[in-house]
Order: sequence, then structure tokens, then C-alpha cells
Amino acid sequence: MTENHGVGGSIPPLGTIAGPSPSGGLTRTAVAREDERPHTIFQLPTPTLLLDRTRLERNVARMRDKVRELGVALRPHVKTAKSIDVLRVLSGGDDMPITVSTLAEARYFFAHGVTDILYAVGIAPVKLPEVAELIRAGCKLRVILDTPEAAEAVRHFIDAEGVRIEALIEIDSDGHRAGVAPTDPLLIEIGRHLGDCLAGVMTHAGASYDCRTRDEFEAMAEQERALTVAAAERLRAAGLPCPIVSVGSTPTLHYAQRLDGVTEARAGVYVFGDLVQAELGTCSIDDIAIGVLSSVIGHNRHHGRVLIDAGFLALSRDRGTGEMPIDCGYGAVCDPLTGALFENVTVSSTNQEHGIVTSVSGAIDFDRFPIGSRVLVLPNHACATAAAHDRYFVTRGEEAIIDIWERVNGW
Amino acid sequence: MTENHGVGGSIPPLGTIAGPSPSGGLTRTAVAREDERPHTIFQLPTPTLLLDRTRLERNVARMRDKVRELGVALRPHVKTAKSIDVLRVLSGGDDMPITVSTLAEARYFFAHGVTDILYAVGIAPVKLPEVAELIRAGCKLRVILDTPEAAEAVRHFIDAEGVRIEALIEIDSDGHRAGVAPTDPLLIEIGRHLGDCLAGVMTHAGASYDCRTRDEFEAMAEQERALTVAAAERLRAAGLPCPIVSVGSTPTLHYAQRLDGVTEARAGVYVFGDLVQAELGTCSIDDIAIGVLSSVIGHNRHHGRVLIDAGFLALSRDRGTGEMPIDCGYGAVCDPLTGALFENVTVSSTNQEHGIVTSVSGAIDFDRFPIGSRVLVLPNHACATAAAHDRYFVTRGEEAIIDIWERVNGW
Repeated sequence: MTENHGVGGSIPPLGTIAGPSPSGGLTRTAVAREDERPHTIFQLPTPTLLLDRTRLERNVARMRDKVRELGVALRPHVKTAKSIDVLRVLSGGDDMPITVSTLAEARYFFAHGVTDILYAVGIAPVKLPEVAELIRAGCKLRVILDTPEAAEAVRHFIDAEGVRIEALIEIDSDGHRAGVAPTDPLLIEIGRHLGDCLAGVMTHAGASYDCRTRDEFEAMAEQERALTVAAAERLRAAGLPCPIVSVGSTPTLHYAQRLDGVTEARAGVYVFGDLVQAELGTCSIDDIAIGVLSSVIGHNRHHGRVLIDAGFLALSRDRGTGEMPIDCGYGAVCDPLTGALFENVTVSSTNQEHGIVTSVSGAIDFDRFPIGSRVLVLPNHACATAAAHDRYFVTRGEEAIIDIWERVNGW
Repeated sequence: MTENHGVGGSIPPLGTIAGPSPSGGLTRTAVAREDERPHTIFQLPTPTLLLDRTRLERNVARMRDKVRELGVALRPHVKTAKSIDVLRVLSGGDDMPITVSTLAEARYFFAHGVTDILYAVGIAPVKLPEVAELIRAGCKLRVILDTPEAAEAVRHFIDAEGVRIEALIEIDSDGHRAGVAPTDPLLIEIGRHLGDCLAGVMTHAGASYDCRTRDEFEAMAEQERALTVAAAERLRAAGLPCPIVSVGSTPTLHYAQRLDGVTEARAGVYVFGDLVQAELGTCSIDDIAIGVLSSVIGHNRHHGRVLIDAGFLALSRDRGTGEMPIDCGYGAVCDPLTGALFENVTVSSTNQEHGIVTSVSGAIDFDRFPIGSRVLVLPNHACATAAAHDRYFVTRGEEAIIDIWERVNGW
């Protein structure tokens, strides 16, 4: 991989506002202007996504140690951060295999030198030409699928186009979303369609998010492992190749006791952590590495509401903590300098560009939220909140902006 | 305003995938390539946002006629479409005042020749330099506020920077979000802070979304009108200027019987309509002009689920119909060619890039959703769903792509 470009290396060119022009005025000039680059968070317009590099490094080290202890390779899911700069923190600059959720991520990371990529959403036949284009360019891109129809479509495309596309079969290890059960006759049928293009099996135990006790988490991690290994063994017993056995989610990896038979582990959201992860016990509130910096724009004293300029477009409408022991609304509110939570204060509702901040305990202390002051909103779900933004303002310590890192959104 | 550029006028340049390179590979090549521009929706990768031009024109005409009948000016809220091309359909190419929700929208529309802009989110003091930059460049940009502190900050900035910034006072007409009550002593205090920079009053009766009967809607529209006009009269009686009296939401304008004393009406989501608006009676299902084109990527026959490649990043996590008579989950599923709804079939849950489609009535007919086939998902909330995409693929009639229109997202 190439070196980190440092501050502003990937910021788009300055758009000037000199008058009406078809191309001008598309960038946030107060930020993008070279001679006015922000050094503290108080120079940033709001809403803005902040990333605490110290916390990121801590989260990355914790998972790296855990996966090393489990004795498998780590293939991080970059769908959370969607940033080559974040991946460089994970990889330390070495080659690292990755998991992606979109072909836009595959193109972006490949363009930045990453070659071993698993596209971990069931392949739609309409996307095969794009997959082939990346493979022909030298990318070791693999796809996943879980139906004979998709396997047939891939096989037909391979034969018609003369390109080798390797696929993993998605295994249903938890009844949560997708995949074929390890005991299902379809497993072998799909494997036979793929033949020598079968590269292995993979699963994601999304049901781990419904676990609440350590015993439940450990059992779910073992179930994820055992069912996926069983599927691999069944394929091998049928004479089919199955070199890769890939499992993972942030909760199951955090709680896993062993990964015998597994070759690689995947997890994504652990790099940032979030309020859901904190409730699941995979991180603490103090590990949450991203937050949305917002300005206080209104006081509605009659209704006990502080208004901020981060609404559902900046925070996302994720309500991940809604069914959890502590409901954080659309985000927990904290002091952007100290990181200290304002106790019982959450974003209780949102409109497009408005967040309504209230206190769970009733009265809110307006003096703590003067008009024009800043708050940091911690996300329920880091993947959803980060996706609302096109860049991170990276901080280290209390208020210094040390970097600006771009994201690759879209498809 | 300048002319519409036609097909692809604003599409970014082609990114090629010839191998790892720091700048390449960021665009969706299968779409952007000049010689492979899609002509039908079946050439589009998924997920993709479609916009039906015929429905858009019908929606635009309906609101234009209604507002003309009410005898006020229309200042559409462009936060829904965020597209100069959509605004050209509204304006017919004439000058038209607009409402924006971000300064990114203000910069973009000003760069495309729109000069009369109301930024309708309470101004944060940190944004005043950006506002001043647009005003100095010739943009008639006005801000809103509802506290003496914000008014003082604006006045201080005006005096310090020597730039004239006009502000409207936001009125609370429904207890729903922001604004100062028309009878509140703060109204006059804020007005006095602004002095000759007071341009008027504005409100948005967001509580209209809680109405269910025609009587309730009509009463809410009258309440929105009456309280805002009362606030204007109070300011005038105190010797303060109040030329602009601005009200509106799609539901209140749709149901309003009269707007005496009002000078302009604002509404946004009516241009596209959505499932929430259909339940509120401001449009029909057949008027909904946007939808997310998705591919069927999986069948989970054990759990009666069809999987599609549109998850919460493509659909948004808006659950606007969750509390309404017909709960459409994360979107209603229809045939992309005919527009016909699959009865009782919705996206019942989402992950980042997965939509889980189920039937409310129990069993789903898998034969109607073959692997690789396309469905169109109609949004609960058009503003939220459109914001997940950076462009519209514009269709007219059954399947032809007639245009590609960009959006301005972010802040």
C-alpha cells in the first residue's frame, strides 16, 4: 500500500464562490481553503464527523490481539470505515485481505493497492461484468452466493466470458438473514455448480446482536464456528474443494473461545465501536471512536428541548439501542472536548437537519448548552452514522485536527 | 437559470480500472462509460435510485395549482430533491425563490443561478462566515433564528463584518420542534435585536404529520397560518418590519383552505411523494415518483424471505409508516416495469446492504421473485431515501432512461 498522504492529501480542490457558475461552489469552502485549514474542532462547520485516532488504535489492537490468540487470519470488513487511511491503521502498512459490502469499496481499495477482497453480499448477476473487470485488472476478488440459481448464473458467466470468478457459499449459521443450512441438500448442489470455482464457505452470525449474556455470546460464537466448519466438511466429503472457512461478527469474535477449523475471521464495526457495541460488551463508551460534532441552534424552554444542527441525515435514523437495556434515542450527547457524557441526555428525535435533545430525567439544564456551543453525538450504529458523511476529521488528544480522511460511499 | 444539460451532462468523468492507482476506480464504470450509457433500467447496476419524470411533473403541477389558488408565492424546499434539474421542472426555467436545509444546497443552487434562498434551519453562529461569503457574492440568502442569543450573534457579526444578513424569526405554530410562540415576550426582544435586518417570520407545522382526518389537517393548516400571521402583526405593532410571512409543509398546503396574510408557502416532499404522504392523503401510491431499483440476491425458503441488495444504506432506516394505518416496513415492493405493488410484500428488515422482503400475509411466492430479477422499493420518506444516493436515473414511460441528474448531498 502507498503511504498515508497526511493532512488534506485527499481533499477535493477548493470551490470558490465568486458568483453564479455551473461548476463552482460545491465544496465547503470554510474547510477546504488551504490557508484556513482547521486546527481545532472549533473551526469546523457543523455537522461534521470526528474520528479519535487514539481510540481507533486501541480498538484495532484489541481485535488484532484477540484474533491472533484464536489462531486465524483477520479479514476486516471495511464497510464500517470505508477509508484506506483507517485500513492503514489496521494493517500497519502491510498487505491485508479485506471484506467489502459494495463494489464501490472493491474498486476504491483495489485502486489503493489492496488485492485480496471478499465481496460479502450475495452476488447479483447484473454485477458480474463489474466483478470480471476487477479480476481482469489483477484483483483477487471473490463473491458469495447461496442459491443454485446464482451459482448457475456465475458458472454461465465464467464459461461465456472466459474469466475465472471464485465464489464462497454463504452458510446460514443462525437463521438470521441469508445462507444455506449446512445440512441442506442445496449445499452440495450449489457446490457442484461452482466446481473448481468453489473457494470455500462463509457465514455471519448476525443473531449475535440478540445475545445478552456472556454464555449466550459464547454459545453463538461456537454455533457460528461449528456449523460453518460442518458445512466445509460436508463439501469436502463430497469431493469438492473448500480451502476457505470464513466466519465472524464483532460480537462473536469478541466472545469466541476457539476457532478450530476456521481459516479467517471477519469483523468491521469494532474499529469504531458504538453505543450498541458498548451495550453488547465488546467495547466501552470510552472506546467509541467517532461522533458527530454539532452546534446548539435553539432552546425550546416550553418543551425542555435543546435543538442541534445534526438531524437524521447526519446521525442516521438507526435506533439500534431502542430494544436494548439503555435506550440512547438517536445518539448519546457528550462534551466534545472531554468526551464526558451528559448524563441521561440523548437525541430523542430527529428531522432532516434538526436533532431534538432532551433529558430522560425530565428537565434539561439549558445553561450547559448555550446557543452556538458544540456537542458530540455518539452513534447507535457506527456504520450507519459514518455513511452519512464523506470524510473524517481525525483528532488526537483534546481538540487538534491531525488529518482529514475520505470515505468511499455509494455503489 | 441555464438550460438542462440533457443525458449525462453532469456525470463525473469515467474512472478506469487498469490496475491499482491512487485516483482511479472511484466511479461506477458500467454506468459512467459513454459508449455503454444505460437505456433501460435492466442495464443499471443495483441498488439505484429511479425517478419517474411523468409522476414528478404531475406532482409539481398539482402543488403549483394549489398554491396559485391560495394566492401566495411558492418557495419550494429543495431539501427533498437537492437537484437543479428537478428545480427546473418546478420553475419551468424561470427564476424561483427556494428554501434550503444546508449551506451546501445554498452554494450549489446559487452556483446554478438561483439567487433568492432561505436557509430554513436555525442559524449556528459558526456558519455566519459562510453565509456572508454567499451574500457578498450576490446571493440573497436569508437565515432563520428563534432565540435572543442567536439574534445577538447575528447582529454582532453584521456590525463586526460590515455585511447585511437578513433573518426571519421562526414561529412555533404547533409545539412540534422549534420556534418562538407568537405571544412570547421573546418575539419582540428577538425582533429588536435584529432591527432593520428583520425580514419576517416563518413556520413549519411539522405536527401536520400527526393529523389523520381532513378536519384535523384543515385545522392544522389554519393554525399554522393564523399563529404566524399573528406573530407578524405583533412585530409590526411594535414598530418592527415584517414583510415576509412564510408558512408551509406538504400536508398543510395540500389541505389549506386559505392563506390570508401569508406571503409565501414552502413545501418539499410533494415533488416525489412517498408512502407516508400517500397515507396522509396528499398523493396516491401511483404518484410516488422515486424508488430504489434492487436485485433479488437470495431466497431463504425456510424462513419465507426474499433477499434484495438494497439495505439500510440504499433505503434509509426511515420507519415513517410504522405508526400509521398501513405499516410498510422499510418500503413497499413493486414491479419496476408496471409500477404495480406486490400486495402485502414489504422490506420488513434491513442490514447495511441487505433488504429482507417478506409477505405480511405469511408465505411469499418465490416464483414471482427469481434470483437476478429486479424489484422497485417505494420509500417511506422520500427525503431520507433520496439522500442515500448521489444521482437520479430519470425514466419516462416503462423502462427508458432519459436522463441522469446529480444531487448535492452533505453540508
